[in-house]
Amino acid sequence: MDKKLWLNDNVISYDAARIDPRDRGFTLGDGLFETMRVRDGNVLRLESHFARLRNGADVIGLSLPWTDEELKEAIYKTLLANELQEAYVRLTVSRGVPSVRGLLPDQNAKPTLLIQAEHFAGYLPELYERGMNAIISSIRRNEFSPLANIKSLNYLDNILVRQESAEKGADDVLMLNTAGNIACASAANIFFVKGDTLITPPLSDGALPGTMRAHVINEFATKHGLAVVERNISPAEIADMDEAFLTNALMGVMPLVRVNGLVIGTGKIGSVTLSLGMEIK
Amino acid sequence: MDKKLWLNDNVISYDAARIDPRDRGFTLGDGLFETMRVRDGNVLRLESHFARLRNGADVIGLSLPWTDEELKEAIYKTLLANELQEAYVRLTVSRGVPSVRGLLPDQNAKPTLLIQAEHFAGYLPELYERGMNAIISSIRRNEFSPLANIKSLNYLDNILVRQESAEKGADDVLMLNTAGNIACASAANIFFVKGDTLITPPLSDGALPGTMRAHVINEFATKHGLAVVERNISPAEIADMDEAFLTNALMGVMPLVRVNGLVIGTGKIGSVTLSLGMEIK
Repeated sequence: MDKKLWLNDNVISYDAARIDPRDRGFTLGDGLFETMRVRDGNVLRLESHFARLRNGADVIGLSLPWTDEELKEAIYKTLLANELQEAYVRLTVSRGVPSVRGLLPDQNAKPTLLIQAEHFAGYLPELYERGMNAIISSIRRNEFSPLANIKSLNYLDNILVRQESAEKGADDVLMLNTAGNIACASAANIFFVKGDTLITPPLSDGALPGTMRAHVINEFATKHGLAVVERNISPAEIADMDEAFLTNALMGVMPLVRVNGLVIGTGKIGSVTLSLGMEIK
Repeated sequence: MDKKLWLNDNVISYDAARIDPRDRGFTLGDGLFETMRVRDGNVLRLESHFARLRNGADVIGLSLPWTDEELKEAIYKTLLANELQEAYVRLTVSRGVPSVRGLLPDQNAKPTLLIQAEHFAGYLPELYERGMNAIISSIRRNEFSPLANIKSLNYLDNILVRQESAEKGADDVLMLNTAGNIACASAANIFFVKGDTLITPPLSDGALPGTMRAHVINEFATKHGLAVVERNISPAEIADMDEAFLTNALMGVMPLVRVNGLVIGTGKIGSVTLSLGMEIK
């Protein structure tokens, strides 16, 4: 079976799909994306992804011409065309092809919609078992840009920090913001556990409003009687934490057991992380 | 005549040009670009542009498979195919189509090369005459990312600040870095003149190493007996400056006469800016 994707109005084969070279998504990174997990034929937390996409569109001044229902239909048709029940879905929206050169967007340009889907049955179980090992990146997250809080196509910092972690033999990084507080991992939110409290950086420190982050705060914590505190976290505090874990839509929850060589808690997956992992697996 | 562009190995028509939807330039902003000016059939400061491109490629770990000679030939063939003597040329390089998903680049992927050219006979003369009016943006330049010093496809901050200036009726912005020092305009370097000295932000404050910036520092200043100081510049110092001007490869030099309503010097193009403008026009 040929792999297919959704481009603008239709499912088509990859070979036939054409992005115009003038598309501002390609020339300027002018667009947004969402990465979603599909389990048993259901796109998880789809409404949260749509809400974040629409917020991002507001931030960059991009008018989305599709309703949530239309986007949902396009996603499911893409899954169906590829016969995928367990999948990773990526929805990309760009500002499209402008009629004039320059940085200011052409308000008459039609946005480009791309939906890609691939088989995905879950994240590296061996990494979950042993827990992740992160370094603190030399690259800082810019909490003084609205891009820190939306999922835009400007993803080169995230690529660079992932390269840095790979070069140093780590699984991921922690990024500090420019004030020196912990902001996030390369493409995930971070939570610390201390006693009965979950501690996570506030969005104002440069954290992305992750869909799994929201799930942990609004559902998991409540259900398990855990307090949640969003506050500045200095790297010096890591030594005092009982557990740490990373979250994103694709991997769900992943224990973080070491940062810059420093062991967190017991150095193994902690009980809160384990409960969460069991629940969302 | 059909408009044509260079894509990978050939000149082709826009209508036939296809960027693969999986290209990391489109999905992640994973690439670089250069914007060059062509006058009388000559690409200005081509070697400086190539040097910056290669530095950017080193920073992001992208191996460029083309020699400078090959790139030069591709640029001139693109100009010829479009019969352009006075032009704007944009060269875009992306990380190409990976064979696997994820943030880490696929080292076997072939980079994409795109060259676009359009007629361009010079920048808005009326704006040069009256001088530019800038506001200080609310978005800060991240001097803690290597992206501040390379010309990458992550250009959404630049778009957002340009939108901000348009909404507020200004011609451009000044971006401060996260420490609060002046870094740059939306897509240009900034110089101040005080007596016989040119003052400009150092690269470490988040300035892009502009080709016109280098020309001003290395050639113009020497020729005219001006000292050049690269140092932190606080917005509070603007009131004490005699002149200010912006530079980039396309517009050359443009007087800046007002920032957040504050008039710089006489509020008209100053003598140093005028000399520079005459020389590079």
